[in-house]
Amino acid sequence: MPKISHKGLQMPESPIRKLVPFAETAKKKGNKVFHLNIGQPDIKTPEVALNAVKNADITVLEYSHSAGFDSYREKLAAYYQKQGLPINKEDIIITTGGSEALIFAMGSTMDEGDEIIIPEPFYANYNGFSTQNGVKVVPVMSGIETGFALPPIADFEKLITSRTKAILICNPGNPTGYMYSKEEIQQLAALVKKHDLFLIADEVYREFAYDGFEHFSVMNEESIAENAIMIDSVSKRFSMCGARIGCIVSKNKELMTTAMKFAQARLSPPTYAQIASEAALDTPQSYFDDVITEYKERRDTLVNALNAIDGVQVAMPKGAFYCIAKLPVTNAEDFAKWLLEEYDLNGETVMVAPAAGFYSTPGVGLNEVRLAYVLNKEDLIKSAEIIKEALKVYNK
Amino acid sequence: MPKISHKGLQMPESPIRKLVPFAETAKKKGNKVFHLNIGQPDIKTPEVALNAVKNADITVLEYSHSAGFDSYREKLAAYYQKQGLPINKEDIIITTGGSEALIFAMGSTMDEGDEIIIPEPFYANYNGFSTQNGVKVVPVMSGIETGFALPPIADFEKLITSRTKAILICNPGNPTGYMYSKEEIQQLAALVKKHDLFLIADEVYREFAYDGFEHFSVMNEESIAENAIMIDSVSKRFSMCGARIGCIVSKNKELMTTAMKFAQARLSPPTYAQIASEAALDTPQSYFDDVITEYKERRDTLVNALNAIDGVQVAMPKGAFYCIAKLPVTNAEDFAKWLLEEYDLNGETVMVAPAAGFYSTPGVGLNEVRLAYVLNKEDLIKSAEIIKEALKVYNK
Repeated sequence: MPKISHKGLQMPESPIRKLVPFAETAKKKGNKVFHLNIGQPDIKTPEVALNAVKNADITVLEYSHSAGFDSYREKLAAYYQKQGLPINKEDIIITTGGSEALIFAMGSTMDEGDEIIIPEPFYANYNGFSTQNGVKVVPVMSGIETGFALPPIADFEKLITSRTKAILICNPGNPTGYMYSKEEIQQLAALVKKHDLFLIADEVYREFAYDGFEHFSVMNEESIAENAIMIDSVSKRFSMCGARIGCIVSKNKELMTTAMKFAQARLSPPTYAQIASEAALDTPQSYFDDVITEYKERRDTLVNALNAIDGVQVAMPKGAFYCIAKLPVTNAEDFAKWLLEEYDLNGETVMVAPAAGFYSTPGVGLNEVRLAYVLNKEDLIKSAEIIKEALKVYNK
Repeated sequence: MPKISHKGLQMPESPIRKLVPFAETAKKKGNKVFHLNIGQPDIKTPEVALNAVKNADITVLEYSHSAGFDSYREKLAAYYQKQGLPINKEDIIITTGGSEALIFAMGSTMDEGDEIIIPEPFYANYNGFSTQNGVKVVPVMSGIETGFALPPIADFEKLITSRTKAILICNPGNPTGYMYSKEEIQQLAALVKKHDLFLIADEVYREFAYDGFEHFSVMNEESIAENAIMIDSVSKRFSMCGARIGCIVSKNKELMTTAMKFAQARLSPPTYAQIASEAALDTPQSYFDDVITEYKERRDTLVNALNAIDGVQVAMPKGAFYCIAKLPVTNAEDFAKWLLEEYDLNGETVMVAPAAGFYSTPGVGLNEVRLAYVLNKEDLIKSAEIIKEALKVYNK
């Protein structure tokens, strides 16, 4: 028998999908499952994007340029500039989702055995992309007590070795909902400049900012023009996760030339999805206003309902649409399985993502879950009620 | 300044796009350029595929399953079974192009420093995917004298080390057009079985078979069910290169479980393109009959015209839509640049791909070019005429 690679064996399973078989059990029993486990929004995709694909006049569905449509890159640069980000067309390569942008960023900056520092808890697939690239994830702990604020810079400095090549942040954060302040980004900027590191910022939730908090991008910090790599995606912004369009953005020419070689090897990003993504940039502001209002209400609904439960603690998210909830259980994964396999409240139950999978340090986050508030308020109220009643039964 | 990774610096530039700036010069001079350099067919995409996207009723463009639509995988399995390939839904993971299927195959079977044996000349992006995975390409030479037939098995055996994990073939071949016989596949099967290697077969041109040659897939060779990995794509079959849909196929459960972890990390293949690809399976047989007839005529037109030129040698391709032509020049890349920068025949010239970039061994193939017969016959006749007249001037 031929042998699977070591890195293939090490590839982590998605913590979000781990419980899928248990959800199937719940459904087989006839129970309705509220999915708080995944970041698939129920928000409608802008019609202008969907119509652009419907009306596209295609006879041969051709490759696009490896960097993406020229027209799309130009329009996207204009979109960023309107947001105050000094980004030009040449600074952008269109990718197949933010996922591919991360793969290009890691491949362009790190070799086998190199290290990347990531504040934990973090988006679980960073583990997968790191394993795929032979890169070692070095976590730096952030905690629910500070609302998952940036860990002290001294904590980062302790972890820097000759193999450290980059720091990766998600801002606003999945799974924490924390949004780094301008001061926090500037602290990181000073750090990466001092140690000649790349600062990779996954900013796919940039527009999802609440309570008047203003997003400060790594692209706004001109002192690190050569260090900063921004990862972006249309998935959440326009509720078009299935498009699989993202981009890698940087002012560092050598980095972009390198990323372009990865882009050329895989030929091009998907054509239909680029048509939709380019058109989506014409989405009226009212769409976003409505979406942000909706998410803010959902956040308040879910977080307040959860915090009202005995023994549950949630840090109020400032952005994105996730929160981490600390539960009065010793093992949140066992509780999550039990919710699906054994519990229901009037034929309804919830699926949550055990948060341990978002930490790289073993044994941390065992009593936490990640919740995505991507359902309507009524369902969120029901979900919180289910969790509340379930905890009473579970802890008896 | 932060440093680019070694592997990023080693990523090869695409030999197909290397000459693009020279083509721009030709166009600026007002010359028409016949593009024989790329495999972008001019054949129309089946209407059934385009219409499926136009008529798709989407309100939220959601992620699909990481393995692709269930319905698509089922229909694709039925398509393969009709072609005599014993492939079931569970043996298929839908990928973002054949490119991603290759990346998953390499990642699942090879670690940094492992070796893959590939008959050269080979599809240039195999170099890129190998570099991305830290894998060493070990070429085994095939030559124009045999029409690029399988090199003797003894040549492979000489190259096998403890780090050899796989053999990669492209069948029918890009850039050679050679199609391996059943006997050749069986020789390879015995070899990979003996040495416990994977046999990765890029079969994206499977349907492009001429002169009654029948394609024999690695999936047909049941003795290597655990070794065989098939790479496929809709790009050429349905002239929908821009869809970016392919798949990785194997009976090896451990391999598929591993590939699935890579698939989960990047979430899902593009949704629109899957709708098009699933519908494309309803393309009537008459479409393929017409396409194959057209390509066969183009092949005959181009190859015969080229072989009639003094000092030019072309091996008759049995499949796909490429050929390698040996030219009476010492450096085909210089000649290709000169064709674009300095030459024209009545305001027209051609762009070809220097074949050296398709060889891994330095200094080989310097007097060869790869030509894609993806233009109509009239343009191919003109192109051959241009090459003929150009050679007279160039060699004076």
